[in-house]
Amino acid sequence: MGDGLTLAQALFAPRAVALIGASGDARKNTARPQRYLAKHGYAGRIYPINALRAEVLGTPAFKSVRDVPGEIDHAFIMVEDVEQALEDCGAKRVPVASIYSNGFADAGDFDRQTRLVERARALGVRLLGPNSMGVVDLPGHVALTVNAVLEMDAPPAGGTSLVSQSGTMLGTLLSRGAARGLGYAKLVSVGNEADLGVGEIVDLLVDDADTRVIALFLETVRDAQRLAHAARKAHAAGKPIVAYKLGRSALGESLARSHTGALAGTDVALDAFFRDCGIVRVDMLETLVEIPPLLAGRAPSRPGRAPRVAVVTTTGGGAASVVDRLGLHGIELASMNDLTMTATQNTYRDTLQSLLDSPACDGVLAAVGSSAQFHPELAVQPILSVRASKPMAAFLTPHAERSLALLAEKGIAAFRTPEACADAFAAFFAWRAPREIGARSAIRSVEALGIPMAQQAIATAPDFAHSIPYPVAVKRLDVEHKTEVGGVVLNVEDDAGVKEAARGMGRQRVLVQRMQRGLAEAIVGYRDDAVVGPIVLVGAGGTLAELYKDFAVALAPVTVEEAEEMIARVKGLAVIRGYRNLPRGDVKALARAVAAFSTLDGVAEAEINPLIVKEQGVVAVDVRVVWKA
Amino acid sequence: MGDGLTLAQALFAPRAVALIGASGDARKNTARPQRYLAKHGYAGRIYPINALRAEVLGTPAFKSVRDVPGEIDHAFIMVEDVEQALEDCGAKRVPVASIYSNGFADAGDFDRQTRLVERARALGVRLLGPNSMGVVDLPGHVALTVNAVLEMDAPPAGGTSLVSQSGTMLGTLLSRGAARGLGYAKLVSVGNEADLGVGEIVDLLVDDADTRVIALFLETVRDAQRLAHAARKAHAAGKPIVAYKLGRSALGESLARSHTGALAGTDVALDAFFRDCGIVRVDMLETLVEIPPLLAGRAPSRPGRAPRVAVVTTTGGGAASVVDRLGLHGIELASMNDLTMTATQNTYRDTLQSLLDSPACDGVLAAVGSSAQFHPELAVQPILSVRASKPMAAFLTPHAERSLALLAEKGIAAFRTPEACADAFAAFFAWRAPREIGARSAIRSVEALGIPMAQQAIATAPDFAHSIPYPVAVKRLDVEHKTEVGGVVLNVEDDAGVKEAARGMGRQRVLVQRMQRGLAEAIVGYRDDAVVGPIVLVGAGGTLAELYKDFAVALAPVTVEEAEEMIARVKGLAVIRGYRNLPRGDVKALARAVAAFSTLDGVAEAEINPLIVKEQGVVAVDVRVVWKA
Repeated sequence: MGDGLTLAQALFAPRAVALIGASGDARKNTARPQRYLAKHGYAGRIYPINALRAEVLGTPAFKSVRDVPGEIDHAFIMVEDVEQALEDCGAKRVPVASIYSNGFADAGDFDRQTRLVERARALGVRLLGPNSMGVVDLPGHVALTVNAVLEMDAPPAGGTSLVSQSGTMLGTLLSRGAARGLGYAKLVSVGNEADLGVGEIVDLLVDDADTRVIALFLETVRDAQRLAHAARKAHAAGKPIVAYKLGRSALGESLARSHTGALAGTDVALDAFFRDCGIVRVDMLETLVEIPPLLAGRAPSRPGRAPRVAVVTTTGGGAASVVDRLGLHGIELASMNDLTMTATQNTYRDTLQSLLDSPACDGVLAAVGSSAQFHPELAVQPILSVRASKPMAAFLTPHAERSLALLAEKGIAAFRTPEACADAFAAFFAWRAPREIGARSAIRSVEALGIPMAQQAIATAPDFAHSIPYPVAVKRLDVEHKTEVGGVVLNVEDDAGVKEAARGMGRQRVLVQRMQRGLAEAIVGYRDDAVVGPIVLVGAGGTLAELYKDFAVALAPVTVEEAEEMIARVKGLAVIRGYRNLPRGDVKALARAVAAFSTLDGVAEAEINPLIVKEQGVVAVDVRVVWKA
Repeated sequence: MGDGLTLAQALFAPRAVALIGASGDARKNTARPQRYLAKHGYAGRIYPINALRAEVLGTPAFKSVRDVPGEIDHAFIMVEDVEQALEDCGAKRVPVASIYSNGFADAGDFDRQTRLVERARALGVRLLGPNSMGVVDLPGHVALTVNAVLEMDAPPAGGTSLVSQSGTMLGTLLSRGAARGLGYAKLVSVGNEADLGVGEIVDLLVDDADTRVIALFLETVRDAQRLAHAARKAHAAGKPIVAYKLGRSALGESLARSHTGALAGTDVALDAFFRDCGIVRVDMLETLVEIPPLLAGRAPSRPGRAPRVAVVTTTGGGAASVVDRLGLHGIELASMNDLTMTATQNTYRDTLQSLLDSPACDGVLAAVGSSAQFHPELAVQPILSVRASKPMAAFLTPHAERSLALLAEKGIAAFRTPEACADAFAAFFAWRAPREIGARSAIRSVEALGIPMAQQAIATAPDFAHSIPYPVAVKRLDVEHKTEVGGVVLNVEDDAGVKEAARGMGRQRVLVQRMQRGLAEAIVGYRDDAVVGPIVLVGAGGTLAELYKDFAVALAPVTVEEAEEMIARVKGLAVIRGYRNLPRGDVKALARAVAAFSTLDGVAEAEINPLIVKEQGVVAVDVRVVWKA
């Protein structure tokens, strides 16, 4: 950019802004940026652009950006004729324009958006939006936004920066945090992400001195590669990223699609993406507000066993409401220290500190009862005075805003609800460092993967002769979901049986396959996902497992060791891991097959279903591959 | 009770209370009841009982209850020598004593508690506790409690009464409700429930004019029969009951056990109990505070298909966060009405009203954005002005206490978090009228149940002769979990095979059973649960289904129709319900088997595993029954 101005400076810390379409009616949305900039102490120059007025809300206005005497670092476009405004910005050499106006991909008009971006590139103008509510930098006193949350007086500044695909939710999160003393640094509404996307914004925030944690409110991911890169950079810089993403349910997913005009990825693919990129994923909205102090300054840890949380409490029922929930997440209780009868400031603090120093637990929960409401200073004092060398969270059972604020002020994670508290611990312990995704191999055929296939041959009328040893399975060749249409006959014992089976299917050609017996069936899948790229899946096989949606997904390719970790996450594959003294299956061979499958190249999607797992080795019974055109 | 005083009057509206062990040190817990009674405007007479002082906090005190000149309706016991205090109450003919003192079942001393109750019965004194924090009646200005939440000035009164097994959580819930204008009528901390239990208290509350909804905070259920009876009475009276129960996870369950000294029932049994008694169960703590207005005045409804919620919103992201969650609960979206661009007070209200009047949806959600924070009167006005003929809930995305209070004032359900909002809708739609539990049959043998059994015989060395048609299964006779110890050989084709199998097991006697083929395996279970009584279970069979804990449970006995509804709740049994064009199994025959099994009498526990479901009929392969001693 001109005169050494960085993108981050133009975006977050512009020395002069043009408000294109600024209204002189203070009640209108389009008057907000000007009002909010003033209200929150913006120190730069403000140029309202208004075709009909010489001044707007007391500030001299201009008919066009072109007429402004000085330089403009950042334009905020609120007019319908976005294209003309962009031309003016280009002529004026404005480096960044945030576009509040909509009617692009958000309204299904992808062509208009594509043309806009192309023209912006040509003009050298970076775009935020369209359909963006703008940018806020609280420590920097920049409130370049139409979001009504800025009506608030002096929202607290803090070390969390927020990137949101929903403009309104940006206000929601700021509002909820502010009510309890949890402040933000920068807040960015990315809108349609036509140019600047979540990934590039995160990249900028990693370099931002005020930002310690990056929080994302997502409906989908539009720039997975860029975000993955930024996430690795964030990890290296010790800045945790945490995401709340809509679309866990099929219903939510379809809604995200219609709302944003984006192709929503399936949630499972994105879940794998977050995990493999080292992005913490939270389940509940409020956790996104509350978790940052738990993450700040920390790195992912792996106890190598079920994580254990120790509890200090003066309210048995309150602590139990969190612990119950921790149990649902597979977290164990290291110890329950109920000090109801014995608590003094000192014993409470000493108990907390000794747990924080003990290797017997991986996290500590302090559950505080009614004193948090009526004697906040006393109630939270012991929690404020310890050295937290491991994740520590407070759960306050009553309505206790002052206690929440005291804890927030000192950077200690505090939770309003037992569910969000448990969600945060679960998200923390599920957090992994970004995984290195290996290079793609050049493997372009299933045979080359080295996965053993069941012996098979095609048998043809009239005699259906073949050389496969009995017993065999006879299968139709021309349909998917063979079982459901009577296209499979199992345990055929002789030639007569093969003929009879083929006749029953009314076929001239059938597949004859050696019957396979093993300890369990697995399914191995591969897909070049439109959102996150190649992913690999392993699950328990069979109809039941399909009903329970029991599988693990990772970005492809994976190593054999990574495949083993995936297998360990599949509940139904417990049957080959030694469950109830059942004979152990060849987990290593399954992992090798998953790893091999994950290196496929040039494939749109592929599936081995079932892959029979034996005591020694695995055998693929049915493989389906859709090669890319 | 004497002079026509009812138990409810003595408990909730005593004309005179004795505070046994009242402290003259205002900072002590034992001074609280006296302070709180005065602070909250108690109009009756207060008699502090203190062995060492002639007056306590300015009120004349007595050495013993026996010395009090007038009658006492309710004594609050805070001394260590509970037994002596009880004797005094008996001598004074005090009808009810609430006991704050602990050291009974709570501390593992069950004998002391049993003796106390026996003596109380003999003396004609009803007991609340021990280990109770007392009773509050907000409309009646009775704050007979040690719970610090009463430090609060003027907590709002409302139509919800709360019964809590955790004394501290009683304060938590009152505090959280009060912060947003949700008031309570009566609040009861039941402690150990040595005499008065949750069931009897609920019974009293059904008759209470101020109570419209009854909320329960539970760790277990100690008087299932009584509570079941009260729940039926509540249903008849149109007073919904809603419960939050700890112990969803195994970890939480073990904690509830150690904390309360009670035998915790397994959560699944209690879940069935709640459903069959018409008690709404919520999953999240805050839902217990927020749901009552959604339930008040309503009865359970059954759309007969997946329930549908229509949404009116001015914040797409906010609405989506609820809808996403609704989808996880199996609730469908009837319509999404995003009025962001077009909303006026009138269009908003009209849209809401037309949805409320439409048969196309079963519930309506109004999601409100930032206006709820900055213009509460305007933001919630349309919601306040409709006639809600079906469940309607508001979700406010920002921090918006004033809007929450306005909605609370008018009895409209409003939610702070998308998760609690969805939890409430899910709980509402899962709500059923109490089920009539039929009488026990006198069936005392499995054979008499009419469930077909696989043909079987015992074969003995040396020749292992039998008359079962081949193919057969050969099984060891002497072990459970036969499969896991190599105790089963399937698909044995001839006599030689039987001999070989028996030899392999090293047995002189084996079970020979005709091989059964069907479409699916089911498991049917029965247990006389220590907490809720006889229950019946149906689930998908096999190891995978066991891993996924996929079953439905109901109080026994069930009718065939009720058993069919249970089967419909089991995900894995989709394979016999026509999933993916798979052949349909005989669901009716399975239901008949479940219903028959549920009528067992004199049985501690029993299991059919597997029960083979065929296209026509079912066959039990293995039945295990533990008769009561």
